[in-house]
Order: sequence, then structure tokens, then C-alpha cells
Amino acid sequence: MATMIALVKASAAPGAEMQRVPVPEIGPRDVLVRVHTASICGTDLHIYGWDAWSQSRIHPPLVFGHEFCGHVERVGGEVEGLKQGDYVSADMHVFCGHCFQCRSGEAHICQFVKILGVDAPGCFAEFVKIPSANIVPLEAAISTDYGAILDPLGNAVQTVLAGPVAGRSVAIVGCGPIGLMAVAVARASGAGPVFAIEINEYRRGLARELGADYVLDPEKDDVAQVVRGHSQGGGADAALEFSGHPDGIHSAFQIVRPGGRVSLLGIPSKPVAMDLTKDIIFKGLTVQGINGRRLFDTWYQMIGLLSQKRLALEPLFTDRLRLSDFKTGMDRLREGRAAKVLLTP
Amino acid sequence: MATMIALVKASAAPGAEMQRVPVPEIGPRDVLVRVHTASICGTDLHIYGWDAWSQSRIHPPLVFGHEFCGHVERVGGEVEGLKQGDYVSADMHVFCGHCFQCRSGEAHICQFVKILGVDAPGCFAEFVKIPSANIVPLEAAISTDYGAILDPLGNAVQTVLAGPVAGRSVAIVGCGPIGLMAVAVARASGAGPVFAIEINEYRRGLARELGADYVLDPEKDDVAQVVRGHSQGGGADAALEFSGHPDGIHSAFQIVRPGGRVSLLGIPSKPVAMDLTKDIIFKGLTVQGINGRRLFDTWYQMIGLLSQKRLALEPLFTDRLRLSDFKTGMDRLREGRAAKVLLTP
Amino acid sequence: MATMIALVKASAAPGAEMQRVPVPEIGPRDVLVRVHTASICGTDLHIYGWDAWSQSRIHPPLVFGHEFCGHVERVGGEVEGLKQGDYVSADMHVFCGHCFQCRSGEAHICQFVKILGVDAPGCFAEFVKIPSANIVPLEAAISTDYGAILDPLGNAVQTVLAGPVAGRSVAIVGCGPIGLMAVAVARASGAGPVFAIEINEYRRGLARELGADYVLDPEKDDVAQVVRGHSQGGGADAALEFSGHPDGIHSAFQIVRPGGRVSLLGIPSKPVAMDLTKDIIFKGLTVQGINGRRLFDTWYQMIGLLSQKRLALEPLFTDRLRLSDFKTGMDRLREGRAAKVLLTP
Amino acid sequence: MATMIALVKASAAPGAEMQRVPVPEIGPRDVLVRVHTASICGTDLHIYGWDAWSQSRIHPPLVFGHEFCGHVERVGGEVEGLKQGDYVSADMHVFCGHCFQCRSGEAHICQFVKILGVDAPGCFAEFVKIPSANIVPLEAAISTDYGAILDPLGNAVQTVLAGPVAGRSVAIVGCGPIGLMAVAVARASGAGPVFAIEINEYRRGLARELGADYVLDPEKDDVAQVVRGHSQGGGADAALEFSGHPDGIHSAFQIVRPGGRVSLLGIPSKPVAMDLTKDIIFKGLTVQGINGRRLFDTWYQMIGLLSQKRLALEPLFTDRLRLSDFKTGMDRLREGRAAKVLLTP
Repeated sequence: MATMIALVKASAAPGAEMQRVPVPEIGPRDVLVRVHTASICGTDLHIYGWDAWSQSRIHPPLVFGHEFCGHVERVGGEVEGLKQGDYVSADMHVFCGHCFQCRSGEAHICQFVKILGVDAPGCFAEFVKIPSANIVPLEAAISTDYGAILDPLGNAVQTVLAGPVAGRSVAIVGCGPIGLMAVAVARASGAGPVFAIEINEYRRGLARELGADYVLDPEKDDVAQVVRGHSQGGGADAALEFSGHPDGIHSAFQIVRPGGRVSLLGIPSKPVAMDLTKDIIFKGLTVQGINGRRLFDTWYQMIGLLSQKRLALEPLFTDRLRLSDFKTGMDRLREGRAAKVLLTP
Repeated sequence: MATMIALVKASAAPGAEMQRVPVPEIGPRDVLVRVHTASICGTDLHIYGWDAWSQSRIHPPLVFGHEFCGHVERVGGEVEGLKQGDYVSADMHVFCGHCFQCRSGEAHICQFVKILGVDAPGCFAEFVKIPSANIVPLEAAISTDYGAILDPLGNAVQTVLAGPVAGRSVAIVGCGPIGLMAVAVARASGAGPVFAIEINEYRRGLARELGADYVLDPEKDDVAQVVRGHSQGGGADAALEFSGHPDGIHSAFQIVRPGGRVSLLGIPSKPVAMDLTKDIIFKGLTVQGINGRRLFDTWYQMIGLLSQKRLALEPLFTDRLRLSDFKTGMDRLREGRAAKVLLTP
Repeated sequence: MATMIALVKASAAPGAEMQRVPVPEIGPRDVLVRVHTASICGTDLHIYGWDAWSQSRIHPPLVFGHEFCGHVERVGGEVEGLKQGDYVSADMHVFCGHCFQCRSGEAHICQFVKILGVDAPGCFAEFVKIPSANIVPLEAAISTDYGAILDPLGNAVQTVLAGPVAGRSVAIVGCGPIGLMAVAVARASGAGPVFAIEINEYRRGLARELGADYVLDPEKDDVAQVVRGHSQGGGADAALEFSGHPDGIHSAFQIVRPGGRVSLLGIPSKPVAMDLTKDIIFKGLTVQGINGRRLFDTWYQMIGLLSQKRLALEPLFTDRLRLSDFKTGMDRLREGRAAKVLLTP
Repeated sequence: MATMIALVKASAAPGAEMQRVPVPEIGPRDVLVRVHTASICGTDLHIYGWDAWSQSRIHPPLVFGHEFCGHVERVGGEVEGLKQGDYVSADMHVFCGHCFQCRSGEAHICQFVKILGVDAPGCFAEFVKIPSANIVPLEAAISTDYGAILDPLGNAVQTVLAGPVAGRSVAIVGCGPIGLMAVAVARASGAGPVFAIEINEYRRGLARELGADYVLDPEKDDVAQVVRGHSQGGGADAALEFSGHPDGIHSAFQIVRPGGRVSLLGIPSKPVAMDLTKDIIFKGLTVQGINGRRLFDTWYQMIGLLSQKRLALEPLFTDRLRLSDFKTGMDRLREGRAAKVLLTP
């Protein structure tokens, strides 16, 4: 039996380790992909650190990781349209295909979704097994660096483009990697002005590089006043929340204009006290929960943006490491000194 | 100077009194309307009872009341398209006409809105002065009973029709007068099934009369199970919240399907702890704050429904009184023994 | 080898004949359905009559027919969620599953669609083979009469609900079976008024029975004047075209209000001279081409409407025949003396 | 009585002449604007040349011209929020304010619209009278060159942004000034690829400068093949028609993908034979008629784009002339040697 190296969450405790494990066997509708580049997500950091969420969700041993690109190594007998050598990425949300959501164009919120790298083996390995329905073929014009971050970039694209942005003011609350990508997507999509709101100075610098018109520090700047002063409707047309922090969430609702939209992607770890009357009802707001990437609308939009070089995300590729050096990458992310850490097996 | 009788919030204390006051003088773009029938809103009950909100917002003395229909008595010199005797109602949200929202089709959430009957004299009187831009001409096919409740009916219409409902499951949480109207609007608009969720037995009876397919008592029924069991997508396509109570709000988020919408009209008096992660973000929901009636889309839709007799709201017209008998009406509403109380000056 | 009776387009000439043919063999993802009731479509009439379109598209011998319901007889080895005896219908548009449209929620306009009953064997038989992805499970509350006409009813539902209709004026141009169903769907969805425009007196009678508010004969009535006189916006909010006739098409564009929508389902056999400037551009219209049924949104909406008895289509079930009496059914349809002809094998 | 110089269509014949005419008197809700810069529209060229349309619509003598910016000189007694010296432009479509369209957010297609510069005196003069409801205040960041072309730029913005474009392929058919602006707007809004299709070589050069990814000559290039080859859905997501020529219109319908949109702004002078079956119905297209600019959504979007410098339209400002040199400008436009000709009184 063929084996491969992989980064494994080996036991119910902090940490992870490189192991030699069997290459996955594929079924008739699966694709085996040789991983070219993977990337570390905040979720991987949680799994690595073994936080409360991980303890409730992850069943070790597990090959984790869910951001990657690579080349098709082998296809199952019933797979059409894919062949060895094809350059691909994948959406790791494995949808059932049968529920109401799957059958009505909303498979990204399938009632029975399983996530590769969380609920089943992922991509921190030489090979990863993917259902063919989840594979996304890529053009050569999209470099492997970009190919490795399409999962979080898709989150950003879905959040930004969940409403009109061209010629509209957009406030981005929280500039972690996805928020930073959102800055670039909003700029590329004609938003103006783009406000980036972030406590961390290092990230504010990246927001500036990626094209934010106004970069604000909520600990020093009067965010609401600046946003209102530079918006046409008494606040931002759209406030996009990536921090998941109660302060960020409240800020998003404060700075959006009456009739605007708030799109929530950042995940708060506890309930948040919301003044629904003042912040949503009287303002006539639209609030959207954003989960994953629309299958596959968001991927098509992302490919459209990337193949035409509308996004310049180079400032985000802060670290390139071997998979076996994963610990260095996890550490730099935890210390807030990195944006996207790319790993090659 | 001509005088008229009016119901006046005379002082900063509970209660109200009939007084003889001057007939309003109108400006060049105003219309003076002779009130035919008015109706008592929950807001009027608050003003009458002098609750915390009223104390912060109302400046006595004030002629209150904002639901009515009547006939044009006199028009200002610059008013076009209206003449004495015209049968009309009005949206009492006086919008500025100049702000971003007013200039982009969202005058219902004007940044500088004033409400007649709250911030300026209202319709509990023989005559009421209305800016011509707020007047809505009515067809004779719409009876004066219906004409008197277009303001809350418009709330219901806006809430129900803020998303697709035909062939979709709709849950209505809270069956006060507006929730009950929403039951009828949802039925008339092809929703199916329509779930009505209400603690009060009297109101549940009205919900049944108005066409709800399933009428549920949250103190006895397993609401989530019933709704999921009779919906196609793992919950209702739309959950419409009219109670403003934290329990009702939480229920709305529980019973809506992934990818569905929650529309909030009921006004909670305090912040509500929301599990944004589970209830909004992972579910990929759309949440809407509903305020007033869209100007004048909602009115056109409402007239379309009423002129074709698509709504049968007779069960709601529980009381018909002289304006001077207002106390009886206020009492019956407070005791939960009435739905809409109609008053004639 | 098992055989079954079937209605076969046997040769490249007018007519069709009952034959005994092999029961279809199913693959691992197919379902064999025992047909309970089928129904004759206008397309079947074309195939039977062997018109120009049929000659260019149909390759005899072919079991035709594509409207039906029945019960699962057998399922392929990889089929999940279906078992013998299940009551089902199906969308006969077999989509590729791989193209852009299929992967972005628009499989109803798949670039590589094949239609069962047109491009491959259909349902005028004891059994029909269907890919499991096309099967739609039905509730027992939907009778087999209704189950047999879900294909055209889905056309009507998609056309009517392609835009807002509750409280909106809707004009239905052409009252063949699908137009008549659209009358019922529009009424059930709160449209008002509903105008039905049809030359044929028999069909106008059915339109009245199905709930049209105004039934107009374009050869006698001043259609544009009546529609404008009973609409709020200087014309109908939506004009839905089911005739495919140039006169009907021109009428639709004349009677719709500025800013309204025209939805085209009827298929003109030749190019139509359009005054784009006056009829579309200056009016700021939205024009929609309607093809098939949205997969499976339209089916879910249809099931929502039917399971709650929001549609009463009994007047359309004009003929019930044995499949072997197909000639009688074809004749009555050709003579305009029938609406839906139901066939049982 | 004060007088001013103006360009006047003096008689029902080709040509126009500079005249001294009275400065317009303003009413209580009007604004008198001192014109800083005006710009020549294709419509002005028609009026100047006295074509069939002009003969049927224009009543000489008329001060024409409808693209401009300037500064407030005087305001009527009831005008709020504007004062002498304010930098402004205006939408020259004077809407009635009372019809269904005006009252439901669609004033740009008012049933009773009058156009300043066509139906009433325009801006080719030292001063122009504008209803205050039509005035759009401008930020100083928008130069007077840009301020003078907001009317056609608004046409382009409305056409491009009438559907999603970020990450979507957009084909622009016809690169006159508005088509060229649309190229820039599409690029600024993240469209990709942007195809520009134009017969005239000079204009193709401008399309390239303004950011088109593929510039095609329909007389030499296989437009359909190139568009399909570089699009993800079997054609462009959106085809925007600015030529008004039957060939351009047919091309737009050919190159759009199934399920895409075609937006029509170019005005054909005669009916066009349309293959509705193949080009609209089977393709499941959405076709939009675009007229003017949405009031004032489009203006807000435009200001958002311009104030943040998202558009670089300098290549379009080909000629700067005194108003009295209008003949030079008209000639250069007629000869296809200019894009936008700016005039200062």
C-alpha cells in the first residue's frame, strides 16, 4: 500500500505531528489530487491549539488543512471532464446533493455538510481525496500561490459581492487575512471609499498596501465620525464584519447607513447583546450571514477576478515553508506576524 | 378662528382628553383632510399610558393618532392632483425629501423623518393637516374601515412581501393586529403553509379565522418540530417577527431554514442576546429590519390587494366607537379583548 | 426480456402507434418509474403531427411524452433516498451537471440539456427511465391528476413568479393550458387585477373559471385601454406572454407599464419585428426568457402551492383516456376542445 | 431685463446660432445655474443636423444642450439646502413627481417626463434654469471636465451596474462616448474580461486606452468565438448594447451566455427583427431597457466612483472649445474624430 507524508492531529491535545500515512483510496466519483501548495487557516490554528470548538468537533487522528491547490493524480471510474495533470483547487464543503438547499442553488449551506480537513481528511499531505463534484479546475494564469488561498479568498469575495459595491462606500471591520482580501476585492470591484478598521498596526499597514482609502484604528480614531463624514448616506452603504469580536460587530451596525447592509463572516464565540430596535429595525437594515463560498458562483467570480489580474494579493503571502516546518508557520500566525503562510509538502 | 374637537395628550402624565382646538392652518403644499375614521395603534396606547418611550419622545400638548382615512377639505395653493372631496389616506412619516435615502427610493427610512401623531399633530380630530407628498388617494372600492387601518396593514404588507412568499412556508411570530394582518397577506399571496405562533388564545382564534394553516401555542406546542415537519427546507422559508419579545425573536431564528429570511418588525424594548454564529452566520440567513411602509411601493401593493378584495380582514374590526369614547377602546386593547378599534370624530 | 406497451413515434411521418417495446434497462444512478398518469403537451402534438420543428429534432423510433407521475419500480445501485413504491414525478430536462449553468444554480438552461420524450425515450409507456437527479418526490396530498401536469404547471409557476406579483397587476396573454395555469397561479399569489387575453371563446371561459378578474377578447375589446384603466402604473406591472404569436407579443409590450416586466414563454416560429426603442428602451422594461422550470426552486414552490391546496385546476382536466386512445386526445386538442388530456397506460 | 449669450436652434432647419437671449426667470422651487462647462451629446448633433426625430420633437426657437456643470447663481424662495456658489450638475429629465413611477423610486421613467435642452431650454448658455429637485451637488474633487459629462456617464453607469459585473465577463457593443465610458466603468467595477466591440478604428484605440481587455473589430474578428473562448459560461455574463445598430443588437444576443443579461441603451431608428425563441426564450435571458439615469441612485454611484478617482476618462476629453466655436465641435463629432467636446460659454 502506497504511503505519503501528512500533518496529523494525532491526539486530543494541543499540537500536531508529521506522519507517514496511507495514500487515500478513491471511489468511482472521487479525485485524488497531488497537493502543490497548501495554506494555513485560522481554523487550523484552532485545531492545532485544541481550543473548545476543536475539542467538540475534531476526532483525532485527522489529517487537517483545507486550503490548497494541486494537480489531479488519479480519477475514479465515473468521473467526467477531469484527467491526470489538471491544475485544480476544491471547495472542501462536501454537500449531500439531496437536500432542499443542495437542490435549489444553495449547496454552500447544505443541511448535511461535511468539511474536509475538519470532519474528514484534508490537504496537509502529499495527496488529498476530493469528490469530483467539489473540484474546481484552474487556469494556468492563476499562480499556485493564489491557488492555495482560494478558500479564504472565496469567503472574502462572497462577503463583498453579496450586495452592490461599485460606487458604494464599504467599511471592512477586522483585517485578518480574509478582511484584508476583502479590502482588495472591494477596491477591485469599484467600491469607494473603502474603510479598513483594525486594531493591529501590522494589519493596518497591509490594509493600506491592499488599497483601503481610509485605514482606521478604533482605539484612536472616531470611526463612526470618519465613516459618516466620507459617506453619502449617513454611513457606509455596506459594513462587512470579519473580526467576530463584539466590539467589531457593534461598530459595523453603528457605521452603516439607514437602509444599508451588514454582512457577518467573523464568528463570535459567545452570544452578543444586540440593540435590534435601534441598530436593525429602525434603520431598515439588511443583515446577512456569510458561510463558505457559493457553489460555484463565488468560484466563477473569483476566477474572473484572478484570471484578469484584478487582485494583487502579494503582500499577503508573507511566509513560504515546507509542510514539515508547520510549527514555524503556526507560531508566526499566533504572534500576529504573518498573513498567509504557504506550505509545500 | 375655526375650531374642532380633538383627542389631546394634554400633559406629561397618563391619560388624554377631548378638547376643542383650532383647525390646523395649511401651507401652500399641504392638504387639510376631514377625518372619516381613525384607528388606535399600539403606539397610541403607549402615549396614552405614558410609558418610558413616550416620556422621551412626546411633547404635550399633542393631538395624537396616525391611522385614518377621510376626505380632502382644502388644498394649499401649490398642490396638484388633489381636490375637495377626494377620498384619501396618508403615510404619516413626513420625509425630508433631500437626504440620500429620500433621493434614492428609500424615503421610508429618511434620516430626518417626523411622524404626524407623534412629533406633530395627528388624526384623532375632526381635521388633520398633511403634506401633499404624503397623501395617498384611495379607490371607493376600499371601504372606510379598511381605509382607517392602512398604516398597520402597510407594515404587514411590507414585512410579508419583503421576500418571495408564493409557494413558500411562512412563520408569523406574534399575532397582535399587525401579525394577524400578516397572516391574511401571506395567505392571499400564496404562502404555504402559513404558521401562526401566539401565546394569547383570543388572538390564536383570529389567526385561524384569517387563514393560518397551523396555529401554534409556544407554551404547549413544539413549535420548531411542527414548523420543520411541515416545511420543505428544514424550517420555514421566512420567519416574520411581530412580537418584539426576546422569546419570539429567538423562536424566529430557530424555525427558519438555512438560507431563509427573518424579517423583524416587532420592537424589543431592550437589547437581546443573539447567538449570531449559530443563528445567522452558519445558517447563511438574511435578516431584515422593517420600518414603516415603502413609499409608495407598499401602498400600491396594498391598494392592489384591497381593490381586488384579496384580503378579508373583517374579523379584525372588533370595535367601532365615537372618538369621545376613546377610553373604552384603550381599555379593551389593554385587556387584550380587541384587535382594531375604529374611531369616528 | 420484459416488455411493455408504449406510444411510439415510429417513422418520419405524421402519426404514432402503440407498440410493445422492451422495458428500459437502468444504470446505477437511474430510476425506473411505473407511469400512473401522463398528459399530452403541445409539443407532443407537434411530434404527432410531424411539423417542421419535429422533423429537425426528432429521430424515430421514439417513445415520446414528458408529462407524468408514477411510482418508483426499481432504483440503480448508487441511488440514495428513493425506494420502490415512492410517488414521484420528474423534470425531463436532463442536465449535464458540469457546465457553468449547472454549477451555478441554473441547470434549467444547461448548455448540453437533453429532453426525455424528445431526445430520448419518454413517458407515454408503462415504464420510463429517469436519472435519479431528475426525480421529484411528491406528497400524497397531490393527486395523480395534478402529478401528471407538473411539467407545464412548472412553466406557469416559473413565469408568474419570475418577479413580484402580490398586489401587482398581471396580464396573461394567451390562454392555452399553460396560460390558464398561470391565471390560477397569479390569483393564488395575490396578483390583482389579473387580466386574461385570449381569442378563443372556450379558453376565455376557462380563464374566467380559474379566477381572472378581467377576461378580454383582443378581437373585440380595446385591450390596452382596459388594462391601463385598471392598473396603477399606466399599464400592467407584468405582462406574461404564452401565445408565441407576434400579435400577442406586441400586445404584451403595449400593455405593460414603464418599468414593468415582460416574461416570454410562448415560442414564436419566426423572427418578430420589435420596436425596441419605444417598447423596451424608453420604457425601461425588463424582458425575461422563460425556459423550463428552475431546478428545483420552481418544483419546491409548486409543491408548496399544491400541498396547501392553493390551486384549483380541476377545470383543466377535461379528458381522461387510456393511453391506447391517444388519437382521441390528440384530435380534441387539435380542435381546441380540450385543455389537459390525461392518459393512463 | 438681463440677457445672456446662448446657442439657439433658431428655426426648423439644419444649423444653430449664437444669440443674446433673456436670462431665465426662476420660480420659487427653481435654481439658476451659471454654466461653467457644457458638453455636446449625440442628441445635440441630431438637433443641429435636424434629422427626422428632431423634426418631430423639437419646437424652435430652443436653447439646447443638456450636459453641463456650473455654480448656483440664484435660488427660488422655497429652495432648501442650496445657496449661491454651490458647485452642481443636474439631471435634465424633469419628472412630474406624482405618477406611479415617480412615487415608487422610478422617476427616471416618469410617464410625463420633459427633458431640458429638448422640450424646454437647456444649458448651451451662460445660465440655465433647473428645478431644485433635479440639482445634484458635486464635490470639489470632481473636476469641471468630469462635471460636464455626468449625464452620459450616468447612462454608462446605469447600464453597466444594472446587474452584477465584478468577476463577470462583460461585452460592450459599440464604443461611442457612452460605450467608451462603459468600458471604464466596467473595468473599475471589477468586470473581467471586458470585451469592446467597435467598427471604428479610432474608437477601438480609445477603448484600449480605457482598459478593455479584448478590443474586437466585428468586420475582421470572429467576435462570438473570441467572447466564448474567454468567458466561463459559454458567452459573456453581460452584453451591453450602445450602438443601436441592428448588427450590434444581434451580436449582443449572440455573444451573451445562457442565463446572462443584455442591456440595451443604443437607440435603433427602426424595428429590428428578433429571433426571440433562440435568442431570448431558450437562452433564459434577461433583457433590460436602459433610459437615463436612476434618480438618484445612479448619481450617487457615479459620485462614489469619481470622488475616489476610480475612473480615468481623460482620453475622452478630446476637444475644449468656446461655446461660440460650437460649429467646430459639431463637425469633429460628425467626422468621428472626437469623443467628448467640452464647451465653455
